[in-house]
Amino acid sequence: MQDSHGPGTQALPGFLFMDGSTITSSVGIVAPRVAKFSEPVALRCGAVIDEYELVYETYGTLNAEGTNAVLVCHALNASHHVAGTYADDPSAVGWWDNMIGPGKPVDTNRFFVVGVNNVGGCHGSTGPKSVNPGTGKPWGGQFPVVTVEDWVATQARLADHLGIRQFAAVMGGSLGAMQALAWTIQFPDRLRHALVIACTPNLSAQNIAFNEVARQAIITDPDFHGGDYYLHGATPTRGLRVARMVGHITYLSDDVMASKFGRQLKHGRLNYSFDTEFEIESYLRHQGNKFAEYFDANTYLRITKVLDYFDPAFEHGGDLARALAPARASFLVISFTTDWRFSPERSREIVKALLHNRRNVTYAEIDAPHGHDAFLLDDARYHRLVEAYFNRIALDVGA
Amino acid sequence: MQDSHGPGTQALPGFLFMDGSTITSSVGIVAPRVAKFSEPVALRCGAVIDEYELVYETYGTLNAEGTNAVLVCHALNASHHVAGTYADDPSAVGWWDNMIGPGKPVDTNRFFVVGVNNVGGCHGSTGPKSVNPGTGKPWGGQFPVVTVEDWVATQARLADHLGIRQFAAVMGGSLGAMQALAWTIQFPDRLRHALVIACTPNLSAQNIAFNEVARQAIITDPDFHGGDYYLHGATPTRGLRVARMVGHITYLSDDVMASKFGRQLKHGRLNYSFDTEFEIESYLRHQGNKFAEYFDANTYLRITKVLDYFDPAFEHGGDLARALAPARASFLVISFTTDWRFSPERSREIVKALLHNRRNVTYAEIDAPHGHDAFLLDDARYHRLVEAYFNRIALDVGA
Repeated sequence: MQDSHGPGTQALPGFLFMDGSTITSSVGIVAPRVAKFSEPVALRCGAVIDEYELVYETYGTLNAEGTNAVLVCHALNASHHVAGTYADDPSAVGWWDNMIGPGKPVDTNRFFVVGVNNVGGCHGSTGPKSVNPGTGKPWGGQFPVVTVEDWVATQARLADHLGIRQFAAVMGGSLGAMQALAWTIQFPDRLRHALVIACTPNLSAQNIAFNEVARQAIITDPDFHGGDYYLHGATPTRGLRVARMVGHITYLSDDVMASKFGRQLKHGRLNYSFDTEFEIESYLRHQGNKFAEYFDANTYLRITKVLDYFDPAFEHGGDLARALAPARASFLVISFTTDWRFSPERSREIVKALLHNRRNVTYAEIDAPHGHDAFLLDDARYHRLVEAYFNRIALDVGA
Repeated sequence: MQDSHGPGTQALPGFLFMDGSTITSSVGIVAPRVAKFSEPVALRCGAVIDEYELVYETYGTLNAEGTNAVLVCHALNASHHVAGTYADDPSAVGWWDNMIGPGKPVDTNRFFVVGVNNVGGCHGSTGPKSVNPGTGKPWGGQFPVVTVEDWVATQARLADHLGIRQFAAVMGGSLGAMQALAWTIQFPDRLRHALVIACTPNLSAQNIAFNEVARQAIITDPDFHGGDYYLHGATPTRGLRVARMVGHITYLSDDVMASKFGRQLKHGRLNYSFDTEFEIESYLRHQGNKFAEYFDANTYLRITKVLDYFDPAFEHGGDLARALAPARASFLVISFTTDWRFSPERSREIVKALLHNRRNVTYAEIDAPHGHDAFLLDDARYHRLVEAYFNRIALDVGA
């Protein structure tokens, strides 16, 4: 769902460039840290994880009053590495580096930004690849099914660990936005603003259907071994590749696929074979291969489930306003016109429920061609909106 | 792409029922026949098939003047079995039985209807499962890539075989409609009407992308053996299942999925497991399993390629009007509002090109909730339109 599009036009560390009238730059070289938690966490599914680690990064400085912290929640395939680069790998630019940094919409000269890899992930936090202390072997297929609510609970413990009593804002796009929304319900007093971008109050049948295709591709791969492929020295690469290909189609709009690839041929002429004939095939295979190299199949399975299960209104008879009744935050809700995965219509359901509850809501539908992926891309109107919103966030509040 | 939805409300042989004011019934018990062709056919891909068989069915009677023949072309997974049932399997109702029969929109009391399984298929016509006379083994992965144009060429030979010089109409939905369109270009004098339903002048990048996911699921299945799985006593069931699941999502509209399944739970409560949680998952798995039992993976691969390659404008610099310049037929073009696979917009491209060429065109956009599959379903407005169109087809023409 979330995709680091590489450096693109992003500023490299040490470089400054003009973007309109704003000088933007990178947070520079960063390093992830690890927080260990030994208090057990009870998950929604009924399972308990006795101890776990969260990998995180921070950018900027927490002010003395502790009022300027911003939590950035990641979506499907991203991580704690939100901004900046690594000393040993300058090409590893954070997935939301165009949004977060000095002089950027989320200005790290003013805000202290936290990125965290969620439990169940495959970027360093405790997940299916980790050793299960109960067995001394990798969790694999035994790693429990996690939920947005579980993630938010563990993120709150990270906030405690960092001495953050209340976030100025919790923000995310797609699955990241679901976490921001859940924060306002679970910990209404621990955030003042929620940025809910390219979100939906729950997955539609079609959304679930695409996730299920991805899961079946992975689970039926003979190299999956019920999730215990680590012990077999195998990787369900074929399934993961197909899963990523189908996902990728849903992140892009039909229009942007048409303008980027159309029916362009790979070799300039038709070959009437099962090799790649069209550029779009080549692009998808490339995306699938790249993803299968670095992403863990067990994590992918669980993250699609996290998406499927998210439905705050479920326990309130489908009444989203009732589900959101505890929320006290102010909201910036943003959708993108060509996002057919989580369409503007679905964001409007969230806005309607919040207005019903007389919450302070700013809503924008950005006319962008890129589909669901738009939330990750450079778009001047989108970025200026976020920038303006953050400029209005007051820091002189009782912490 | 095409799906026989089972008997549903269709008349069983020997039964009559009232549908509005029209008495409709089935063509009853039918039997397929086989036509053998020993004259080689040169395919677009450069390969030559020396001899081949086509399985077909006919309903109604060819009149003395030979002016009342209608060719029905099938789409992705259907066959020559268009209407009626089989003596040994009364549940095997033809895939377009709601459209074709005595008193039905295509009235077999008036028209002589021909259904044919295309070359490369898996319902009896020469295809990958057939024995390659050159090797004495099944063609398997060596069966050539076929195209819409190849199919039309072989269908024309079947027409010769049946003594049909000119069809009153050639009709089809989806990939079937592409064949009807190709007939008007390749054999302009051999049909008077073309019914082009739920069609597109070519596949979009997104359409090709979905096909490519399906192909990769099949090709990377370890049981595929480069297409020679027959010789290994294997079947790439896993890949075929995933391929069908992804296809099926694109045949239905988001709306119809929402109203049919929504977020309904399979077991009434959440189980936080990888078993089916939601009805939509159960439905998709069922569709995938059913399909993988009867359909041949090599055929599926080739038919997705047939779709990808169809692009009559390609050889005319993208100018569809020029591509359709040879056409002499009158046209009924129908699209469905919720068809996001081949949207009404794409059908309008065909209409525009035909009008540019001053062809006789009737165009209807049917407001139907079912998405691409709508062309196979009972819809009174849709069926009355087809009925009215066929009522106007004159049979007293020079044969």
